[in-house]
Amino acid sequence: MLAGSFPSAPLERIARKAGAERVSLSAVNALNEVLTEIAEQIAREAIAAANHAGRVTVKREDIKLASR
Amino acid sequence: MLAGSFPSAPLERIARKAGAERVSLSAVNALNEVLTEIAEQIAREAIAAANHAGRVTVKREDIKLASR
Repeated sequence: MLAGSFPSAPLERIARKAGAERVSLSAVNALNEVLTEIAEQIAREAIAAANHAGRVTVKREDIKLASR
Repeated sequence: MLAGSFPSAPLERIARKAGAERVSLSAVNALNEVLTEIAEQIAREAIAAANHAGRVTVKREDIKLASR
C-alpha cells in the first residue's frame, strides 16, 4: 500500500471543515496517499518548469504553472 | 493570501525527493495552498459520495471515487 507524507490531523481538520460528520481512518489514509501523489506530480512538473527557465531553484511561479 | 494546512517539512521532502535542488519558501507555501484546495475539493466530493450511499461516515471508497 502507498504511504502518505502528511500528518493526519490537518487532513481530518479539512474533512471536518468540509462538513464531514465522521471520517474513517482508512479514508484519512487514502486522502493522504492521493495528496502525496498529487504533490509529487506537481513537484516534478515544477522542477521541469524551473529548469526550462534556466533555474535550479523552484519558485512560486513554477508551482503555479505546474498546478494548472 | 490563502493559507496552507500542512507543515512545510513533508512538502520540502517531497520536492527534494522529486529532484529539486533548491526550493524557495514561497514555492513551498504555494504548494501547501494548492494541496489544501485540492484536499478541500476531494473532501467535499467524498462527503457527497458518502451521503449518496446513505452514510454519514466518509470511507476510503468515497475518497477514491472523489479523487478520480
